[in-house]
Amino acid sequence: MKKKNSHSPAFNAVTMTDPLFRHYVSIVPEKLIPYQWNVLNDTEPHTDPSYCVHNFRVAAGEAEGKHEGMVFSDTDVYKWLETLAYCLERGEAKAYEERADELIDLIGRAQEEDGYCNTYYSVNCPDRKWTNFAEGHELYSAGHLIEAAVAYAHATGKTALLQIAVRFADLICEKFSSDGALANACPGHQEVELALIRLSEFTGEKKYAELARHFLQVRGNDSDFLMENLKQQGSARIFPEFADYDARYAQSHLPPEQQQTVEGHAVRAMYMLSAMADVAREFSDEAMKASCLRLWQNLTQKRMYLTGGIGSSGHLERFTADYDLPNDTMYCESCASVGLMMFGRRMAALTGDASYYDVVERALCNTVLAGIAAEGDKYFYVNPLEVWPANCLPGTSMAHVKPVRQPWFACACCPANISRTLASLGQYLYAQDEKSIYVNQLISSTLKTDLHGNAVFLDLRSDLLMQGRLQLRISAAKAQPFTLRIRIPPYLEEPSFRLDGKPISPVIENGYAVIAISREGDQNLEMLSLVNPRWVAANQAVRADSGKIALMFGPYVYCLEETDNGSGLPFLYVSPEAEVLPAPPAEGLPGSLPTLQFHAKRLDSGVEHALYGSPSFRFFDVELKAVPYALWCNRTPGEMLVWLRAAL
Amino acid sequence: MKKKNSHSPAFNAVTMTDPLFRHYVSIVPEKLIPYQWNVLNDTEPHTDPSYCVHNFRVAAGEAEGKHEGMVFSDTDVYKWLETLAYCLERGEAKAYEERADELIDLIGRAQEEDGYCNTYYSVNCPDRKWTNFAEGHELYSAGHLIEAAVAYAHATGKTALLQIAVRFADLICEKFSSDGALANACPGHQEVELALIRLSEFTGEKKYAELARHFLQVRGNDSDFLMENLKQQGSARIFPEFADYDARYAQSHLPPEQQQTVEGHAVRAMYMLSAMADVAREFSDEAMKASCLRLWQNLTQKRMYLTGGIGSSGHLERFTADYDLPNDTMYCESCASVGLMMFGRRMAALTGDASYYDVVERALCNTVLAGIAAEGDKYFYVNPLEVWPANCLPGTSMAHVKPVRQPWFACACCPANISRTLASLGQYLYAQDEKSIYVNQLISSTLKTDLHGNAVFLDLRSDLLMQGRLQLRISAAKAQPFTLRIRIPPYLEEPSFRLDGKPISPVIENGYAVIAISREGDQNLEMLSLVNPRWVAANQAVRADSGKIALMFGPYVYCLEETDNGSGLPFLYVSPEAEVLPAPPAEGLPGSLPTLQFHAKRLDSGVEHALYGSPSFRFFDVELKAVPYALWCNRTPGEMLVWLRAAL
Repeated sequence: MKKKNSHSPAFNAVTMTDPLFRHYVSIVPEKLIPYQWNVLNDTEPHTDPSYCVHNFRVAAGEAEGKHEGMVFSDTDVYKWLETLAYCLERGEAKAYEERADELIDLIGRAQEEDGYCNTYYSVNCPDRKWTNFAEGHELYSAGHLIEAAVAYAHATGKTALLQIAVRFADLICEKFSSDGALANACPGHQEVELALIRLSEFTGEKKYAELARHFLQVRGNDSDFLMENLKQQGSARIFPEFADYDARYAQSHLPPEQQQTVEGHAVRAMYMLSAMADVAREFSDEAMKASCLRLWQNLTQKRMYLTGGIGSSGHLERFTADYDLPNDTMYCESCASVGLMMFGRRMAALTGDASYYDVVERALCNTVLAGIAAEGDKYFYVNPLEVWPANCLPGTSMAHVKPVRQPWFACACCPANISRTLASLGQYLYAQDEKSIYVNQLISSTLKTDLHGNAVFLDLRSDLLMQGRLQLRISAAKAQPFTLRIRIPPYLEEPSFRLDGKPISPVIENGYAVIAISREGDQNLEMLSLVNPRWVAANQAVRADSGKIALMFGPYVYCLEETDNGSGLPFLYVSPEAEVLPAPPAEGLPGSLPTLQFHAKRLDSGVEHALYGSPSFRFFDVELKAVPYALWCNRTPGEMLVWLRAAL
Repeated sequence: MKKKNSHSPAFNAVTMTDPLFRHYVSIVPEKLIPYQWNVLNDTEPHTDPSYCVHNFRVAAGEAEGKHEGMVFSDTDVYKWLETLAYCLERGEAKAYEERADELIDLIGRAQEEDGYCNTYYSVNCPDRKWTNFAEGHELYSAGHLIEAAVAYAHATGKTALLQIAVRFADLICEKFSSDGALANACPGHQEVELALIRLSEFTGEKKYAELARHFLQVRGNDSDFLMENLKQQGSARIFPEFADYDARYAQSHLPPEQQQTVEGHAVRAMYMLSAMADVAREFSDEAMKASCLRLWQNLTQKRMYLTGGIGSSGHLERFTADYDLPNDTMYCESCASVGLMMFGRRMAALTGDASYYDVVERALCNTVLAGIAAEGDKYFYVNPLEVWPANCLPGTSMAHVKPVRQPWFACACCPANISRTLASLGQYLYAQDEKSIYVNQLISSTLKTDLHGNAVFLDLRSDLLMQGRLQLRISAAKAQPFTLRIRIPPYLEEPSFRLDGKPISPVIENGYAVIAISREGDQNLEMLSLVNPRWVAANQAVRADSGKIALMFGPYVYCLEETDNGSGLPFLYVSPEAEVLPAPPAEGLPGSLPTLQFHAKRLDSGVEHALYGSPSFRFFDVELKAVPYALWCNRTPGEMLVWLRAAL
């Protein structure tokens, strides 16, 4: 069933050598796995109890009490296991394998006889299983169990968790497939769909992919299903904020093939779109593919922040209207940008087009990295482009915006989602199909892979920002021709290539420079290019960014922080022609990305004492220093700003 | 007990002759009283049932069913009666007096034996009376009953409603005064305090004023009281949004005398501050006065919109931080600006300082008038300074902002609050004390009053905006000296005066031009002044308005509407030196306020197809037309903008 085109290499195949990404990837086994283990087990002193492992103990009958915490708390455990699996696959975090195996045994004991596995429903309300699709997250939780199980089996060869997942998946197939009792039910939070595809690919069992397709087909057929379902809960309602629930929120207002704009809760939308791209590929479903293409366009050309953040409404973490991109009140959940990476990778696999990786890179190098502290122990859930800590007040419209990263969250999806993304980052860097290896990100790293029996090793060294140079050593064990496809991102100006010192002019195909490799042994490819810091403006329809410019360098969006530039960042004006000079990295930030310095002006309205008065605008010269948005709030906390006013 | 300084004249004493205010005041008896009567009685076809009168029928045992609608639905009835009273006092809306008397009889039958009067508790949960101070609004409802009763008795001489109110007030005194069983209880929504002062003044019974003082004294003594009270409700909680309740929200975080900043729900805050000013005056309480002065400063110098709107957070309709004045996401409830007028009038009475009326005028001439449609049948609850209808979407952070006025609201405080303010507008125009008549607003009108047996008639004709001229005919029956104090608002430049044709140079005292009148018969005062449209900037600490200017003419804030200027209003830039030309009033708007025309530029970022790109800013010349903010959305609905970008 599986088409082998453009699949990603195994997770142990990629090693990061880029200083920034090596840092973030290495903290996963070194810090995140231990820290999150403690959080899950309620042994972390600085966070409230999560009850995550406790709930499994209660479900297994090995502890007293009720399920505590969020209804989907099991998924934090599953995502931790999935993350650990990727680490184990690279030979890291071995100390946690035994604990993981014990945890998996516990999950097995918490699983019910018929395969059902969900601690909230098993413990607190077994009589309400499969009744609350809008809020219950049972299928969502099942999806994360399945993803963890596939990853763990792939990494360790151990199948205990896979067996648990398969038993549950089989139960779900029985209940939900077209001839099942719940054939009309629409999952309230997508996730199970993409997990079932993954399970199908791993096991070769087609029924799981078919159920994934079924879940997409049933969605939106009855646009009232989830609303009616919610009404039926009566006093058993779980989420008070779902007073404002509507079909669009859960993308069930229309069948996925008919949706014209990307709507509703951003994470739900990304998980659905990822599954749609999977189904389009697995079933060669052209209608689904057309919808993916259309929704990708709407998403990335009308509803995405410069940082790859998505979700313009703070309330309900959702999409709003085309070009509605407020910079301070929005949500831009870390998980939504993780989901955007997932969707983008699948679209590239579906189409072979490199441009999807431009967006993956944008989300990764900005919002996803910003979601986690350099030390790995604090997280942003919400990722605004403008922060004024004084107005991020509890009980107000700005309560969702935290001006500093938090050690954990009652709803803790983001930390674990960032962790599993970093731990499996290789899948976003390289891909291969029968004839090609794809270099999708120009991040220094090595790849060890097998291409039809030809052992290929790539050593990519990128110094594009500071030197405009990328070096790639290709070592092939056999003289077996293949093509190397290197994504040429739009910020590279006039790239030129040399292979073993000789200029070459590769064809650019679907955004990839195509280089034929046919001999064994080492070859050295060099790419030289101009990469300059650049000022960016938004489409003229974006009100929030009108008359403003932002600074980018390569894929990195830069921002101003109070610690470098003082307070009152919104009062700064900069010319779109201002010269920007790279300067040494800021002390205390990981990696070696330069800071950027430029001249600007600070505006003063001249109204000093009264609240309103006669304008007497004055400008004062200032020198500013910008740092990568990905790294903000890793020094003294304070204001932050991405979009500066243009001096026109 | 009552100090007679600076009290307001009776409501029948003032007649509006200004075309704009005559329009809005005349629609109260002509349209609002009939329309709201129908709404209260569920006979208005275009609105959902309000159940307001129905609830009294059920409470009286004359209809079947439960209390329906908001817990404080009785207050809509009381505010209607209060509004009608002001109309009756001027001889208007006489057709409704009989209906009102029948309604009052019904309220009397709904009142319980011991004086308790609240249809929600009487019908739905008599066992929970006086238990839910955070949410129950019993004292708030009592306050509006008392205000209506005083107004109705004053207007008609009929005391049936007053007797109901007094019986309830006596019960409240018994329960809540310092030796009562509920002596520690803090009202969750202030209102009863100012009503009790009013009842005390009307009846001469001091205990009501003392209870008002007690309610202020008990407030914030135990800052946990309301939070604990809310917790005790368990599953009997009324308002889901009170998940984010905090002591500051209800101004119970500190005793009123110690509060340093104006906090929490804006309407609650204004009602409390009004009562504080009343108590400061009635009891010569200097600590309370000092707190009023301090909080007024914070309110008007750091937390108020140019339009006199207040409440920067859309969520929970509350204050946020100093200088945090976002223009699109805030609340700026119509009722809060009504409350600001109430507080300002009392501060003027307390201090004799005219500057308080500058703020009253700002709130009245902008937010309060904007709250009601020219036809009187639609209302704004939320009053933003920037509206883009496309992003005012249900289920998002912008759901509270309605781009068009609504026929009614589930929580319908605003329509009735605007009505009673317009119906009693005379109190904000004139005041008098033993020796003086105060002209507090320069709005064309007449006043008929008695000053120690001297019948005085004032005929004020203001054509300040178009001619810079104000004419005041003073007719005194006796040659009995008094002073006329005319507020000189800050937008009058170089006022010069003539009395009966002869130049005079009155002293300016506390913001009033003081003119001695000693002879009987007519005297004619003329004031000439320069009044020009002016560009205004905000304090340099206001981020949302930085680099922006707004247009004012006299007390009126002007705005741009899409119907005059096309869409994309935020893309416009105007020079702070731009010449502004008054032009004829816009067709279809009440009154005769001019429109204002000026030259501006429209910015185009040059990024047309992609979402982000290289800036290529271009300006295009445009001619713009601004209309009074008070009158926006009375023609074709669309975008609206107050603060324009300054071309610097």
